[in-house]
Amino acid sequence: MADVLVQEGEEPKLSKKELNKLAKKAQKASKAAEVNLVKMADVLVQEGEEPKLSKKELNKLAKKAQKASKAAEKGGNQQQSASDEQEDYSKDFYGSYGLVNSKEKKELNFLRVKEVTAANASKDIWVRGRVHTTRSKGKNCFLVLRQGVYTVQVAMFMNEKISKQMLKFVSSISKESIVDVYATINKVENPIESSLSLPLPLPKLPLQIEDASRRAPTDEEKSNEQENQLAVVNLDTRLDNRVLDLRTTTSHAIFRIQAGVCNQFRNILDARGFVEIMAPKIISAPSEGGANVFEVSYFKGSAYLAQSPQLYKQMAIAGDFEKVYTIGPVFRAEDSNTHRHMTEFVGLDLEMAFNFHYHEVMETIAEVLTQMFKGLQQNYPDEIAAVGNQYPAEPFQFCEPPLILKYPDAIALLRANGIEIGDEDDLSTPVEKFLGKLVKERYSTDFYVLDKFPLAVRPFYTMPDAHDARYSNSYDMFMRGEEILSGAQRIHDADILTERAKHHQVDLVKIQSYIDAFKYGCPPHAGGGIGLERVTMLFLGLHNIRLASLFPRDPKRLTP
Amino acid sequence: MADVLVQEGEEPKLSKKELNKLAKKAQKASKAAEVNLVKMADVLVQEGEEPKLSKKELNKLAKKAQKASKAAEKGGNQQQSASDEQEDYSKDFYGSYGLVNSKEKKELNFLRVKEVTAANASKDIWVRGRVHTTRSKGKNCFLVLRQGVYTVQVAMFMNEKISKQMLKFVSSISKESIVDVYATINKVENPIESSLSLPLPLPKLPLQIEDASRRAPTDEEKSNEQENQLAVVNLDTRLDNRVLDLRTTTSHAIFRIQAGVCNQFRNILDARGFVEIMAPKIISAPSEGGANVFEVSYFKGSAYLAQSPQLYKQMAIAGDFEKVYTIGPVFRAEDSNTHRHMTEFVGLDLEMAFNFHYHEVMETIAEVLTQMFKGLQQNYPDEIAAVGNQYPAEPFQFCEPPLILKYPDAIALLRANGIEIGDEDDLSTPVEKFLGKLVKERYSTDFYVLDKFPLAVRPFYTMPDAHDARYSNSYDMFMRGEEILSGAQRIHDADILTERAKHHQVDLVKIQSYIDAFKYGCPPHAGGGIGLERVTMLFLGLHNIRLASLFPRDPKRLTP
Repeated sequence: MADVLVQEGEEPKLSKKELNKLAKKAQKASKAAEVNLVKMADVLVQEGEEPKLSKKELNKLAKKAQKASKAAEKGGNQQQSASDEQEDYSKDFYGSYGLVNSKEKKELNFLRVKEVTAANASKDIWVRGRVHTTRSKGKNCFLVLRQGVYTVQVAMFMNEKISKQMLKFVSSISKESIVDVYATINKVENPIESSLSLPLPLPKLPLQIEDASRRAPTDEEKSNEQENQLAVVNLDTRLDNRVLDLRTTTSHAIFRIQAGVCNQFRNILDARGFVEIMAPKIISAPSEGGANVFEVSYFKGSAYLAQSPQLYKQMAIAGDFEKVYTIGPVFRAEDSNTHRHMTEFVGLDLEMAFNFHYHEVMETIAEVLTQMFKGLQQNYPDEIAAVGNQYPAEPFQFCEPPLILKYPDAIALLRANGIEIGDEDDLSTPVEKFLGKLVKERYSTDFYVLDKFPLAVRPFYTMPDAHDARYSNSYDMFMRGEEILSGAQRIHDADILTERAKHHQVDLVKIQSYIDAFKYGCPPHAGGGIGLERVTMLFLGLHNIRLASLFPRDPKRLTP
Repeated sequence: MADVLVQEGEEPKLSKKELNKLAKKAQKASKAAEVNLVKMADVLVQEGEEPKLSKKELNKLAKKAQKASKAAEKGGNQQQSASDEQEDYSKDFYGSYGLVNSKEKKELNFLRVKEVTAANASKDIWVRGRVHTTRSKGKNCFLVLRQGVYTVQVAMFMNEKISKQMLKFVSSISKESIVDVYATINKVENPIESSLSLPLPLPKLPLQIEDASRRAPTDEEKSNEQENQLAVVNLDTRLDNRVLDLRTTTSHAIFRIQAGVCNQFRNILDARGFVEIMAPKIISAPSEGGANVFEVSYFKGSAYLAQSPQLYKQMAIAGDFEKVYTIGPVFRAEDSNTHRHMTEFVGLDLEMAFNFHYHEVMETIAEVLTQMFKGLQQNYPDEIAAVGNQYPAEPFQFCEPPLILKYPDAIALLRANGIEIGDEDDLSTPVEKFLGKLVKERYSTDFYVLDKFPLAVRPFYTMPDAHDARYSNSYDMFMRGEEILSGAQRIHDADILTERAKHHQVDLVKIQSYIDAFKYGCPPHAGGGIGLERVTMLFLGLHNIRLASLFPRDPKRLTP
């Protein structure tokens, strides 16, 4: 029987002594060898000795296994004699399933790799995993099996139950194959060696999972010529081979955290009485003016892809839903090739009727985000740490209640630090970043709200400030100095909306249905749209938004 | 002070005696009149006597109120003397807010309309609601306020605190205005008259909420000439004026249930270890062959809108996420103008790696849906009843464990009931409906699974049956005889997938990235896609899918 070794710690090493001890124990083992590995195309799946398999099934399997074993040996030792083959006393215990096309139902109680812990030591278990690495040393063979973010090491030692052929078969399994193993969980005092640093080269994979998992060298490391530079996979190779790149611990962690962002957002809003709505993505006219919109052929005419669900959120408010949110794709035909722009991203949008002042909404949104950050840190500490291993970043910091900064105060802070900027100027991206740095220094927070933007730099539907016509009831929210949300009180009066649209030279005909929505009474309301991938990227301190999108889309990338 | 009357029961009447009693009580009232109504454009919002408002504010308000009162009376009694106006001793207690542009912060503790219950009787409260109907009778005025699906009646009687002018002002408020009222909750023995049957005509609304809320007459009622036929709003008028139509109790109930479908789906899957993913909607090539796909201009080239997230779910499986789901828009360029087709709908998609047999997945999906139906019936009984008032339907029936029918058995059942159909024929829509009826009669369930469709009628990526090449490892699921889910085991082997694509004459160049996803080992997997609006429609027994889409899209409708 193989041993599944319980990994503990980060960069463990198995001592020589430990290895010898294990080998001796294994050789003495009187139990049948129950490691069973079965090869099929690229997917290896086990079939083997378990009480539930009939004798007939086992025989069939053994024959298949011998064939597979022969095939596996063709490339290696073609001279192997027939007598050697007859000596394969393990032949019933490994082989290939062939195509798993649901021919028969089977029940094996697989233990999850993450459940292979010291607490389960000495139990005999089935486990299914992907071959992360294999390493054979004479009469030993080690397999690291990976399942999501968890790995476990399988140790096999040649003995009276594990044949030479079986070891050869196992060590010939290509990386990224899927195998089933029956083994005993064995707790080792000195945790086992991580095979991550000993990759078996497998040229046919377009990228190696280990390389794609590696932290990029720091400038210091780069300048150190003596250091043995290990391969790091560049972003385009990653994205071209996204299926393989997604198998890294880092990718798994990123997308589990991203699912957590959505989950937190919805749960927090549900608890506050918001209703989830669905907004259409195909629209008859661009609601935000007309620039940066994708056109779609629509039967004999044409249509557009929604740049935001804003109109529909607002119509739901006019329809008395009071508090609504929606999560869905948002499309921007901007030819921006930056680290933070994509042509399609996921919007976390919310809109809320208020009683008297838009701060009721702005404060709600800021609280929702703060609550979300807390939830993420509580629920995903392992995933955050895993991402940090590859992409080191300061932990995300925030304060409670959230910091709210007025635009004029931000301008004053910038000027006091040498930035020349007019009262009603918009913030450029570098200035935003710099402001984030100043805010972090002064207030120790990576998250803050910037309130009361100049009216001139906001869209026509933004409610002007009641006290100073130069400003507006609008706000942005920032994480690590980058904008993640833009929001405002919207004009809920059809006449004023028309007037402001004219002022902005927006074609009234195109936005008629937008204006009509406010003709039969609409409560005052405000809201905002959050970029999901930006939240993920900035919460984790990633350097490129594409790492936070499963299948990113930008002006130059439409595949996979 | 006005009285907020607690409604109990469905079609209550306020007796003459009750009305007199109330009127007398009101006239004797020594308290100040605190009904405050304020008109602005179409949105009416209250401002009024509450400890938090300063004397100055009150004075300002009173002046505004007098102006508003004058304006309101212009249309009516222009002859009103100046002395009458001076006699308006209520002038401080009603008026208009003007534009609510967040000029000042205010805190009023509004009670929700649904909280206006007998348990709160005799409390003085603020409530905000939309004017559903107004009715004045001499010295009385009744307002029905609506908030979402809840309504409450406000009764005002002229007395030493409620002036003639105030009553006139209140009764002049147009329907669908929003008002704030300060009043005492008054429990009445015989619940109050529903004003729903006494709409004040307001021609400027393109549809009346009461009409849009009305059940269509049955054939029997239609043929009854004596019956006074009340207006029913047709679907196109509804959808053209969707903001108003959304205000009906029925619409609120439908979309709360729909939010519940998504919520249940996610919670059930989260608990089973699924991970939520986001799939791109802009794709480089149509994955399902090329028919029925919308084309998008993409910078200097072109792209397509995803007909399903299937490829991306499968790639996530190949990326070792094991169990994934995604909720998002799905686009179909089908020129189908039926009760159950839209060009854009919301897909609830899931995909799952299995160990040995696709039934592990099929049974999981059927269980998830069954659990969802239970959750909906438990959590939304009021909403289901509300929809039933307008669109009567048999309660949705299902069995546990879910019924799974094999395709050949369904064919046999159909033949036994007079349908001529070949072994490998697909089911037409009427035949599906008829099969649903037969299944309901025999098994008492509105939900069932049809397993093992003929291979010929399924897409190229469907795994053939291991035992009979005419069939496949695929299934549909039905509600009330209509398909809501299509699913299958997918071919996870690149070579077999290529072969099947060739057999179906699919252009291999266009699906190369799909095929490539399976080149580096993919576990066997199956899944399915559920139409959200179909689930909502069929769970509730609605007759048209557009009622279950906030802003439906079909070949003829792109607005609002």
